[in-house]
Amino acid sequence: MQPEDTPELRALYKGFEEQHLLPLWTQLGDLMPIHPRPRAVPHVWKWADLLPLAERSGELVPVGRGGERRAIGLANPGLGGHAYVSPTLWAAIQYLGPRETAPEHRHAQNAFRFVVEGEGVWTVVNGDPVRMSRGDLLLTPGWHFHGHHNDTDKPMAWIDGLDIPFAQQNDVGFFEFGSGRVTDYATPRFSRGERLWCHPGLRPLSGLRDTVSSPIGAYRWEHTDRALTEQLLLEEEGQPATVEQGHAAIRYVNPTTGGDVMPTIRCEFHRLRAGTQTPTRREVGSSVFQVFEGGGAVAIDGVTHKLNIGDLFVIPSWVPWSLQAETQFDLFRFSDAPIMERLNFARTHIEGSD
Amino acid sequence: MQPEDTPELRALYKGFEEQHLLPLWTQLGDLMPIHPRPRAVPHVWKWADLLPLAERSGELVPVGRGGERRAIGLANPGLGGHAYVSPTLWAAIQYLGPRETAPEHRHAQNAFRFVVEGEGVWTVVNGDPVRMSRGDLLLTPGWHFHGHHNDTDKPMAWIDGLDIPFAQQNDVGFFEFGSGRVTDYATPRFSRGERLWCHPGLRPLSGLRDTVSSPIGAYRWEHTDRALTEQLLLEEEGQPATVEQGHAAIRYVNPTTGGDVMPTIRCEFHRLRAGTQTPTRREVGSSVFQVFEGGGAVAIDGVTHKLNIGDLFVIPSWVPWSLQAETQFDLFRFSDAPIMERLNFARTHIEGSD
Amino acid sequence: MQPEDTPELRALYKGFEEQHLLPLWTQLGDLMPIHPRPRAVPHVWKWADLLPLAERSGELVPVGRGGERRAIGLANPGLGGHAYVSPTLWAAIQYLGPRETAPEHRHAQNAFRFVVEGEGVWTVVNGDPVRMSRGDLLLTPGWHFHGHHNDTDKPMAWIDGLDIPFAQQNDVGFFEFGSGRVTDYATPRFSRGERLWCHPGLRPLSGLRDTVSSPIGAYRWEHTDRALTEQLLLEEEGQPATVEQGHAAIRYVNPTTGGDVMPTIRCEFHRLRAGTQTPTRREVGSSVFQVFEGGGAVAIDGVTHKLNIGDLFVIPSWVPWSLQAETQFDLFRFSDAPIMERLNFARTHIEGSD
Amino acid sequence: MQPEDTPELRALYKGFEEQHLLPLWTQLGDLMPIHPRPRAVPHVWKWADLLPLAERSGELVPVGRGGERRAIGLANPGLGGHAYVSPTLWAAIQYLGPRETAPEHRHAQNAFRFVVEGEGVWTVVNGDPVRMSRGDLLLTPGWHFHGHHNDTDKPMAWIDGLDIPFAQQNDVGFFEFGSGRVTDYATPRFSRGERLWCHPGLRPLSGLRDTVSSPIGAYRWEHTDRALTEQLLLEEEGQPATVEQGHAAIRYVNPTTGGDVMPTIRCEFHRLRAGTQTPTRREVGSSVFQVFEGGGAVAIDGVTHKLNIGDLFVIPSWVPWSLQAETQFDLFRFSDAPIMERLNFARTHIEGSD
Repeated sequence: MQPEDTPELRALYKGFEEQHLLPLWTQLGDLMPIHPRPRAVPHVWKWADLLPLAERSGELVPVGRGGERRAIGLANPGLGGHAYVSPTLWAAIQYLGPRETAPEHRHAQNAFRFVVEGEGVWTVVNGDPVRMSRGDLLLTPGWHFHGHHNDTDKPMAWIDGLDIPFAQQNDVGFFEFGSGRVTDYATPRFSRGERLWCHPGLRPLSGLRDTVSSPIGAYRWEHTDRALTEQLLLEEEGQPATVEQGHAAIRYVNPTTGGDVMPTIRCEFHRLRAGTQTPTRREVGSSVFQVFEGGGAVAIDGVTHKLNIGDLFVIPSWVPWSLQAETQFDLFRFSDAPIMERLNFARTHIEGSD
Repeated sequence: MQPEDTPELRALYKGFEEQHLLPLWTQLGDLMPIHPRPRAVPHVWKWADLLPLAERSGELVPVGRGGERRAIGLANPGLGGHAYVSPTLWAAIQYLGPRETAPEHRHAQNAFRFVVEGEGVWTVVNGDPVRMSRGDLLLTPGWHFHGHHNDTDKPMAWIDGLDIPFAQQNDVGFFEFGSGRVTDYATPRFSRGERLWCHPGLRPLSGLRDTVSSPIGAYRWEHTDRALTEQLLLEEEGQPATVEQGHAAIRYVNPTTGGDVMPTIRCEFHRLRAGTQTPTRREVGSSVFQVFEGGGAVAIDGVTHKLNIGDLFVIPSWVPWSLQAETQFDLFRFSDAPIMERLNFARTHIEGSD
Repeated sequence: MQPEDTPELRALYKGFEEQHLLPLWTQLGDLMPIHPRPRAVPHVWKWADLLPLAERSGELVPVGRGGERRAIGLANPGLGGHAYVSPTLWAAIQYLGPRETAPEHRHAQNAFRFVVEGEGVWTVVNGDPVRMSRGDLLLTPGWHFHGHHNDTDKPMAWIDGLDIPFAQQNDVGFFEFGSGRVTDYATPRFSRGERLWCHPGLRPLSGLRDTVSSPIGAYRWEHTDRALTEQLLLEEEGQPATVEQGHAAIRYVNPTTGGDVMPTIRCEFHRLRAGTQTPTRREVGSSVFQVFEGGGAVAIDGVTHKLNIGDLFVIPSWVPWSLQAETQFDLFRFSDAPIMERLNFARTHIEGSD
Repeated sequence: MQPEDTPELRALYKGFEEQHLLPLWTQLGDLMPIHPRPRAVPHVWKWADLLPLAERSGELVPVGRGGERRAIGLANPGLGGHAYVSPTLWAAIQYLGPRETAPEHRHAQNAFRFVVEGEGVWTVVNGDPVRMSRGDLLLTPGWHFHGHHNDTDKPMAWIDGLDIPFAQQNDVGFFEFGSGRVTDYATPRFSRGERLWCHPGLRPLSGLRDTVSSPIGAYRWEHTDRALTEQLLLEEEGQPATVEQGHAAIRYVNPTTGGDVMPTIRCEFHRLRAGTQTPTRREVGSSVFQVFEGGGAVAIDGVTHKLNIGDLFVIPSWVPWSLQAETQFDLFRFSDAPIMERLNFARTHIEGSD
């Protein structure tokens, strides 16, 4: 397909180089593949490996202004040594020792935390202290000040999800330091955001303006668990309530719009009945799952990985995947789906559905 | 301003009449007033008057196919003998005796019920049985089949709100008879819609398509009460949470969009601290309030009306009103605000705010 | 269906009356018909009748402050002597003599003018003088100041369309007098709104905020004619371009949104090839047509009416209609469709399409 | 700020490496800078350099299946040898010799062409032949089949803009080969899309469904020029019509929504009066300009570059820039602004406006 290699062609290509030009015809297949061919690869990180390293960091690495967070990022083996779990997403385990404070700052990047075990830390978001407990999803939308403090004598670890790689690649990041401590050390059971907004179907008249990101700072496990339980019960009663047979799922949403919690990140929770296997899917965009409860496996691109509580795995764009539940199997998921949908790049393929 | 009355003018006007014409210049002030001059008037209906008439209807008037409902409409004294509480809204007290069934039908008109006292009736909406209890708001959006049955040995009364006058004036109504009984006599504590949708901030993956009206069939008093309680507590803590000092309020919303529960009807609940008086407001569009708990008064167009539990009153368009709370004072409100906002006619004036 | 007429029932009904109540069961069929049963009736107004009456008004009735406009409203024979062409719409012929000025005012009601013949008048909308010529649609969205002046020695007549009945029924109207003259007697060929906005697919960077109504004050016949001509040519070339075989049509839109020109009124222009007959349609909501060019007929509810240039007719809600073109047949249409669509009451039925 | 370098820390970091982990604290400033610090650099490509290389490619490099296009991409010197003009955008000069055909294909990536000089090529988009002439913007939204053919005996060059880097980084690209020729060699003056859609403020009734990208295939220079001319005339008349004094500008839009022409790419055209200098701006996201007519300069990050017709330059994210017009100065611009706005990362800073 390429033109014959002649001195004239070489001279032309030399001219391109001098003028900071590159021809399309020598690189079309790389630039415009038939379907997504991600450099990111599927990978599983075992909680049993992560947690001890986080604990050891707790001993060796202080937390404070400058380093800001004791967070250890998952670095996709295909992405050349960057702490990117996928081209768009950052996932990290964060660790806070007894009585420690991670100081306040804010950034354009959107962030959340999900708690697979433990409790005792409050994250203070724009001055509102938010309790972090097992199974909770906590939001820190872009440009909200936030810091964390551990109110107990025990350490706590959780996962952070952000759109750092996307922000970095596309040059959209801003960052500002805030208080070296957190601005409010109160430890209320419920944040002010929850007290205003977590009443199903009710909206405060003081909050009629829609917000870009959700005003709910904490999505509690109690609600998530109940929603999934009801879906499976309704399914048993013969009602349409689940995504597919044996597969319950919720999306965390912004109550002012019914849409995703933040402009770049989708958060969901999935529950499979024991024995369920989901159809093999491919989707444009990347996802990270963390096992919350139960045991099972995921088949990614034909390779099956056994999974235990706390294990994390990434599904790069357009790679086929399917979940298998040995026991009742609970998984938290986050993805860049809002980016794909808002920019009209979303596509899904479910095997057997053509 | 009018042209001189001459034989020629009379001939002209005769010509108009023959051709089904009417000049603007003889009627401009009526057709296009300086501000809304509603024919509807402010009026208070006392629950102490309504309930006995409803009970007497229970003795004298059967419920069933044809008449369909034992509903008694509030007829605004200014609207010439129509059962219109305002030009857009219908409000009625409905009464169902022990073990009675109001048969199923559906209509383009949007409807809700609000329960000021009692329990024991289930409304079955598109096959989903919905318990009706004190303080609950129950929806029947347009073209949903619905019937009611009383599962107890005691009668029950509640109020209905619909957009019947709007539908009638604008010729948009359709009606279809359904089952002569209700399609499901089950009496579950929670409807299927609630079980799927009433988890704060969570959306079922099986329900990702936005719906015109809310998929929540029942907004429970427990949630409403808690939301208002929290607003007042937050206010005490110095947080911005209420509409104005001493005035907590929620809007019932469609969780798929964050907007109003139905395309034509807004539903809200207001709670005033004892001693609170709201600023005097004028709004384009009409509202109906029902007192749910406590005592107080409303000043409408300068006239103060004392209010007790169950009392209903209507505020026509652009008529000034203010609430006064003697005790903690709880009021349910519905209005045609979505019509005004969607068609860009909404305006509000708060006295003292120019 | 009605309860037996007994003294007790009469007492009950007396009680209702005293308390300003009306039962649903005595009036259900009227309040909630099986399908829309409009009081408005189909009717045709002949231009040959209207124009002489307008001219005669020009001789007998002055135009100026107070009466404001020499406008003669079409009064639907079913609507009891109101100048309502339908429950939502006002249609009038307006007449301005040589060198006359209709003074400025503004109102919440939305208005447009359509010119079936003549020229020489400028309408000044929020200070922007807009030429009125044959085939043009001119907008005066709600709360825009506007006045008209005739710059010639010949009279001019045109039709006005407004949402006066809707505003009146729903108590949303505001009105304010402006200058007794128009604020700018310039007679430019193109208004400023056109000069900024009438470049296909281009939006001024100074106008990036969406507006509720179209910023285009005048939709010129030249563009309308060309658009329809192209549709019919494309159809001849075998391309999908027309609504249905032989039936070209455009909708006038707000370029900031692609939606209707004003929140309550839809404007369209239809062109039929000679010999075309449209399928019989029923639609929720009412429409008014004016013949602009050519000859043909309309069948409304089974009755065929011959039509000539300038003739106006109204189609009430859900009444079946079909157009028949003798020659190439051009018709301007306006309707309340945005109301029906925004409030989710829209329905269409096309005969033979079930 | 970093923990002391001890054997224990090294062991920890070794553990991170083995587990595909990277700590945040060693790289925070790079990952989350205070403001965007793009790797992309400002750069100017001179048309006088580009065109001869494109012409030489015409002699040495065939066009056809496989290489697909004789397109030469602008490679930002900061982006490490990729043909990316910025992290999101691709810009190339494309060259088609006399009577040549570039075969049909389609891809998820969105594309446009802009013609700085010449004519004679038709691009065939989903079967619709679209003439390409000087000053025209031609669209090929994602997943539309397209090929080009030169109907003359003279070569033609133009620029292509696409979101290839964004698609590549985020793994969203799909590609499909189509006909080896173009499917229609007709050379109509106007494409079918234009004939249906290029009537200002008018929308075909056959096209009432909104489309993700604009249905207009060609935005003609004649309209762009007239729009800009009118803005400057209106400014002279004292009307608000320009972005700022002496600076007229239009955005190309999707007429079905009033929004950007494609989900990821914004296209604009700017005209400065001679002597005008724009305020210094910083914006999140990257832009490419091409000079279309006249002479002037751009100051980017404090460095001034003289500009002639055809010259292209890139402004990376948050780099300050200002245009200076020697003569009347016309520039085409495209950017990734829709990405920034849809994902809520957009920010603008105008010097002197704090």
